[in-house]
Amino acid sequence: MNTVTLTLDEIHTLARAALLKAGSNEEMANCVADTVTRAERDGSHSHGLFRIPGYVASLVSGKVNGNANPKVEHITPVMIRCDADNAYAPLAHARCLDQLAEAAKTYGIAMAQITRSHHFAALWPETETLAEKGLVAFTCVNYMPMVAPYGAKEKVYGTNPISFAWPREGSTPVVFDMATSAMAMGDIQVAARDGKTLPSGVGLNEAGEPTTDPKDIDPNTGGGMILPFGGYKGSHISMMVELLAGPLMGQTVSFETEKTDNNDGGPPAGGQFILAMSPEITSGTADWGTGADSLFDKLKSFDGVRLPGERRHKNRQDTGPRSINAELVKTVSDLG
Amino acid sequence: MNTVTLTLDEIHTLARAALLKAGSNEEMANCVADTVTRAERDGSHSHGLFRIPGYVASLVSGKVNGNANPKVEHITPVMIRCDADNAYAPLAHARCLDQLAEAAKTYGIAMAQITRSHHFAALWPETETLAEKGLVAFTCVNYMPMVAPYGAKEKVYGTNPISFAWPREGSTPVVFDMATSAMAMGDIQVAARDGKTLPSGVGLNEAGEPTTDPKDIDPNTGGGMILPFGGYKGSHISMMVELLAGPLMGQTVSFETEKTDNNDGGPPAGGQFILAMSPEITSGTADWGTGADSLFDKLKSFDGVRLPGERRHKNRQDTGPRSINAELVKTVSDLG
Repeated sequence: MNTVTLTLDEIHTLARAALLKAGSNEEMANCVADTVTRAERDGSHSHGLFRIPGYVASLVSGKVNGNANPKVEHITPVMIRCDADNAYAPLAHARCLDQLAEAAKTYGIAMAQITRSHHFAALWPETETLAEKGLVAFTCVNYMPMVAPYGAKEKVYGTNPISFAWPREGSTPVVFDMATSAMAMGDIQVAARDGKTLPSGVGLNEAGEPTTDPKDIDPNTGGGMILPFGGYKGSHISMMVELLAGPLMGQTVSFETEKTDNNDGGPPAGGQFILAMSPEITSGTADWGTGADSLFDKLKSFDGVRLPGERRHKNRQDTGPRSINAELVKTVSDLG
Repeated sequence: MNTVTLTLDEIHTLARAALLKAGSNEEMANCVADTVTRAERDGSHSHGLFRIPGYVASLVSGKVNGNANPKVEHITPVMIRCDADNAYAPLAHARCLDQLAEAAKTYGIAMAQITRSHHFAALWPETETLAEKGLVAFTCVNYMPMVAPYGAKEKVYGTNPISFAWPREGSTPVVFDMATSAMAMGDIQVAARDGKTLPSGVGLNEAGEPTTDPKDIDPNTGGGMILPFGGYKGSHISMMVELLAGPLMGQTVSFETEKTDNNDGGPPAGGQFILAMSPEITSGTADWGTGADSLFDKLKSFDGVRLPGERRHKNRQDTGPRSINAELVKTVSDLG
């Protein structure tokens, strides 16, 4: 793979230019470019510049509103609704996460619901932002149907990721962020590009039969579908995500979302569920970290076991330039 | 297997007598007997009379307080703390679930934290009770260490079940309740009793090597350990349960709990995390059920796919007597 070396600032500039050219205003372009740059910084390449063509497509098609003005209102003192006005999600986060944190710090628990937003990024930026404010955080989104519920042979669920973060004083939060499908769509696409086969149990072909060929599994190239992680239990969790990020906040479930999406390759309109809790209030003590640290110390004591998020946080310590796929850099440059 | 036929009232009387004899007061004996009877009614035999010897053991040893007086206080308007005073969990639920529901209906979201309780039952009685009041509910507990985190060869996590319920107007809630281990401990014990082998991937022996022998996996009989469901993703969810039901509310994680438990065979002292949300408030509409029903209708359209909880609710329609293992009935009778 040919690569080009870019500083983090150069990555930001490149992403921003493509978004502005496609019709985003300054504020949203900056928010999305921040998210993309943080992904490249942490080594989450599948959520970095790789996503820019999709972001651009949905601005150009008009599905995403380049001049969106997300509005935040308190439904109750502990429930914040952010109608994203068809913005990309990072702009909605910039508008509502501080208010969510404030409510959680006052009442112990609070929820933000983001509606009519377009989420195309990882989820850890949200949970980690809240954890850096001393809060325990959970979030999930549904998406477009790509996953067959356990026992079915039809795409119903999105890859429906969930992220959870636990804050640590004087240290980086412990954060996981994972699709509730057996594999994330981006990883299946990368395997297809590289001509690799996948382990059995990842997906089904168009006829609903097991296959290890990523091209057959990819709904876009082969009409197939991914399986949930962990059999029926993972399927239950994916169902829960459909409900929390959809009907709970008056938004649609993934297979209904598909019916109104314009298939421009960018993310559909949908909801995001975000929960924040103050461990100081819930535990009733300022020493809430000790019990959790004993668990993390135990986990770190095992050979080959890493705390979730550790690899990203290690990558982050390197503030130097990053090697990026040259073809991708050219594609994004041409869009800017 | 020899069986005895008992009415639901007879099951309740049998359970209640054993608990009273072991030192429980009337109120707690009734609450626990209700929970046990509901489990037998729904066909959840592993949480029915099967649990009475363990309930009795912890009353007799004094680990559980037969005259516990759980106290409920509002930490904030949306956060309810129930110090269970070392009661069995169903007594704590009887004291705090109504207040939790009221807070959720007022503020949209509320949390109950139960501390110093002993949970030995399924979790669906809590989430289903809340769903029957029109609320979306989630709960989890940690337990004693029986599960090796993904990549480790040592028991750290409990089987750490989670339950989620979605209310439906005019119909039973959709409810799942599942261990975050590859198999519930009760099922492993039943397989051992029946001389069966288990699928690979369920557990490890004492040396941390894969085995399919349930006796080797059972920490009590073989010193082994269960694996999380769904590899590293299930392991992450189990870690989240450790934190939510433990340090978040000032309670211990499972492997720390073990150090203070008296190993009488009953459930250790610990915490329970319960979340309740009003879909009417979160969605902003009285018509919040339609979007979810479209998902449930889709799931029901697949051959062989059942909605979570459906089997229990079907069993429940039968109000007649139940067939129970004769040896178990004798054991419980002798305790009463």
